[in-house]
Amino acid sequence: MSRPTAPAPTSRWFGWGSDDAATPLSPEVLGLLEAGLGIRPRDARPVALTDVRLPGCRLPQDAREALTAAVGAGHVLEDDRSRILHTRGKSTPDLLRLRGGEADDAPDAVVLPADEDEVVAVLRVCVAHRVAVVPYGGGTSVVGGLVARRDGFAGVIALDLSRLNRLLAVDEVSLTATLEPGLRTPQAEELLAAHGLQLGHQPQSYEYATIGGYAATRSSGQASAGYGRFDELVVGLRLATPEGVWELGRAPATAAGPDLRKLVLGSEGAFGILTSVTLRVRRLPEVRSYEGWHFASFDKGCAALRRLAQEGPLPTVLRLSDEAETAVGLARAHDVGGPAAAAGGCLVVVGHEGSAVAVERNRVAAAEVLTASSGRPLGAEPGKDWVRGRYAGPYLRDALLDVGALAETLETAAFWSALPQVYDAVRAALTSSLEATPPLVLCHVSHVYPTGASLYFTVVCAQADDPVAQWREAKRGASDALIAAGGSITHHHAIGTDHRAWLADEVGERGVEVLRAVKARLDPGGVLNPGVLIP
Amino acid sequence: MSRPTAPAPTSRWFGWGSDDAATPLSPEVLGLLEAGLGIRPRDARPVALTDVRLPGCRLPQDAREALTAAVGAGHVLEDDRSRILHTRGKSTPDLLRLRGGEADDAPDAVVLPADEDEVVAVLRVCVAHRVAVVPYGGGTSVVGGLVARRDGFAGVIALDLSRLNRLLAVDEVSLTATLEPGLRTPQAEELLAAHGLQLGHQPQSYEYATIGGYAATRSSGQASAGYGRFDELVVGLRLATPEGVWELGRAPATAAGPDLRKLVLGSEGAFGILTSVTLRVRRLPEVRSYEGWHFASFDKGCAALRRLAQEGPLPTVLRLSDEAETAVGLARAHDVGGPAAAAGGCLVVVGHEGSAVAVERNRVAAAEVLTASSGRPLGAEPGKDWVRGRYAGPYLRDALLDVGALAETLETAAFWSALPQVYDAVRAALTSSLEATPPLVLCHVSHVYPTGASLYFTVVCAQADDPVAQWREAKRGASDALIAAGGSITHHHAIGTDHRAWLADEVGERGVEVLRAVKARLDPGGVLNPGVLIP
Repeated sequence: MSRPTAPAPTSRWFGWGSDDAATPLSPEVLGLLEAGLGIRPRDARPVALTDVRLPGCRLPQDAREALTAAVGAGHVLEDDRSRILHTRGKSTPDLLRLRGGEADDAPDAVVLPADEDEVVAVLRVCVAHRVAVVPYGGGTSVVGGLVARRDGFAGVIALDLSRLNRLLAVDEVSLTATLEPGLRTPQAEELLAAHGLQLGHQPQSYEYATIGGYAATRSSGQASAGYGRFDELVVGLRLATPEGVWELGRAPATAAGPDLRKLVLGSEGAFGILTSVTLRVRRLPEVRSYEGWHFASFDKGCAALRRLAQEGPLPTVLRLSDEAETAVGLARAHDVGGPAAAAGGCLVVVGHEGSAVAVERNRVAAAEVLTASSGRPLGAEPGKDWVRGRYAGPYLRDALLDVGALAETLETAAFWSALPQVYDAVRAALTSSLEATPPLVLCHVSHVYPTGASLYFTVVCAQADDPVAQWREAKRGASDALIAAGGSITHHHAIGTDHRAWLADEVGERGVEVLRAVKARLDPGGVLNPGVLIP
Repeated sequence: MSRPTAPAPTSRWFGWGSDDAATPLSPEVLGLLEAGLGIRPRDARPVALTDVRLPGCRLPQDAREALTAAVGAGHVLEDDRSRILHTRGKSTPDLLRLRGGEADDAPDAVVLPADEDEVVAVLRVCVAHRVAVVPYGGGTSVVGGLVARRDGFAGVIALDLSRLNRLLAVDEVSLTATLEPGLRTPQAEELLAAHGLQLGHQPQSYEYATIGGYAATRSSGQASAGYGRFDELVVGLRLATPEGVWELGRAPATAAGPDLRKLVLGSEGAFGILTSVTLRVRRLPEVRSYEGWHFASFDKGCAALRRLAQEGPLPTVLRLSDEAETAVGLARAHDVGGPAAAAGGCLVVVGHEGSAVAVERNRVAAAEVLTASSGRPLGAEPGKDWVRGRYAGPYLRDALLDVGALAETLETAAFWSALPQVYDAVRAALTSSLEATPPLVLCHVSHVYPTGASLYFTVVCAQADDPVAQWREAKRGASDALIAAGGSITHHHAIGTDHRAWLADEVGERGVEVLRAVKARLDPGGVLNPGVLIP
């Protein structure tokens, strides 16, 4: 049992990461904005923290006292800064509203339990006092997963899990590790590395997102082709509910009825609070080898990825930028607009991690497939560039917002045969709904499966007078379009509140009713993240 | 859309397969029985079909008429043979009772709908008339999955899905195929082969088990190391319930809430009737290469399998017999007791299927790992032997029952670190509870995962006076022991009624309650396979 050596850093209240890591826009990007999108940089920086308009704390006194009894004095925070830091997540509308000084969705208090027992105690207090509970890990939701319904409740608390940050157990024979939910990814990797192990889960939110959040939202990382989606890594879990703890996972796989672990994974705090997850882990790789490949078109690149996904060998990282994203150089997010690695066409990043023998074997075999699929090797440089900038996207967004640009992402997945029509439909919908501020629409394939793949879109345009409404319209149009074309409403961002209206398109009215029935059984008081996930 | 060219064969009512394929025991096996187990062969053959004691048909006349209206005349069968053929499954107790002429669990009628609409219509009739519905595919359950509770119902029907036997769609880009549930595996493979495709799902029940049954019970096949468990192959499904059809699966993977497909897979007919499943399929392999390896002990063999599962490359088939099973030669079930391929130690069968290039690459790489793990290559012969006898086990059991031996199997799965204690505990429990008729206990590992593996036990001993009670006791002892040692109550045989008492050990009381809540929502009348899966 061990804990991280250093506390987790706090993200900026109005944006991503720390001021230290923030970078201003390069002259190249400013040039792109002005020439390509007609955006004349203006000062659109956030208001001061002290100018944020915060609703008064509405928590009843008896609830406050009971919560304090459950977690101890000093672990129920009601100061402005704590409440603002736990307001909403990190979608562009979330940031735009906070940057403008609007914090209507702030929780009444932030509660920090120390362990599973305290989590259960807090839930019981919340049921008794009809207080809504928003589980809070890294606060990185981009789909409104941290905005619970207020009506019918005496108050709303953010249940901050950052004190549940232990590595509880390591099984070096089975290659599993049991982790608490509040661990940030770098903390988890630090603790595992002491055993020569790693998780390998590397979404763009890597620095701030938590183990519990990954499980609750069925996260997928940049290296999930090789290491697996997060839900595939979970072999066991414990879920705290108001009625006690539910433990699952006696074996890697069984036929003992439906796999109920999968019913908890993706439940976004609506069924309970994950208090630990047991994950498949890997030995630290001996070698990491990244390289770039060039394809003449997005279609040809997709065909090559499909062949690797269906016939193998599957690299650890496999990522294809479309023509627009390749031209802008977004695959090197720390240096967008710099000299492009590929003149025209599309960039594929291929990464292999593992033992020296396995990496060399797979690299050679994958290169044969890529070459046979009309790919042209670009060497190690584009791969290194991508690795360097892999977590830079959210910093770039903050800088774009600062100068009056709108920047946001959305994602979907589809079977291979439907992928071209989903790609076209989303681009057309975004271009059409943002007609007044013609957007740059970039796309990449970041996750492949034998039967399909994900599409990840980045949109940049000038901000309209009401950029929140502007994006809401664009997002609605794109969501309707991708559903009509056969895509999923989300590949790895989850449902939250932003995608709730499309959940029935995804799982049917019957599916929504089944989720309601499960929630009614596990959370009869309905205090767990009300309004999130389930319409 | 296509259907099989030939009708599916009917299994023998008292046992497995057809009389043509049945083989008498070899002199070597008879010798083993007598010398090793003290079994003097006696005539224990089944009673004649006409001597089976069948309860009268209890279906009320109005229910019979409504069912006939739903599926048409000629598709509601009440003759003795049809009812006996749909009585229970193929566990040894199931067979022993039928062989003795006892068919108390016979359904009142066998109903054969033609399509999904008729399935829904039948379910509505059953709700209206309070008739219990047992979904019936190949009838190969070995866990009492076809024995519904009678009390509180006006009757019980077997819903035979054999007429839902179409290949509905093939997507050659995404490599998926949509199949109806009543297709037997050889039929499904024949239809897919016309497109150059295959499923690759090869459990021992291959010849008789159906697509719907595999999905409903989360089957795992002999080649699931390479092709995946059946639940991993399902990307979409349609479930008929009394209130209509529920469709799931917009994309290979999403983050749109919990993966509800996984809640249907493994639901064993308790939530609804699968009317189609969309499966990942593969191109037909160019090459199939099987070989044998020798290890000095079961522990050393396990270590080698673990290394392949954790570091790769994973063969298509990977199977390790323990010392006892190797000595008996059960891995060559068509020729048990013949000259052993390996003198002492343990046999591993390794199979690779795929393109010539991939097979050669993986074969060489796997051989390096096996050699480094102290394995000794035995060449292709043991591999060929295993392939030849891979479906012979159930025929051998019939022949053993015929001469008064008891033969049955049970299986479990555990994390690698718990595997040795589970192995020891199950062997000890079986040896102890069958003390009066000292058993031969054989075991193999047939499925590996990065974090664990399955154990499959075969038990042979002399029949006691009441062999059903004899096995019930042995099974109870083994089940308690494997749960206490950290194993799963079942790896791929499912819960049915035989494992129901241990479901709460597997998923917790909370898990049982969640399953009840889901069932109440999907099957408010409670007519779907009552008493199966959910305690």
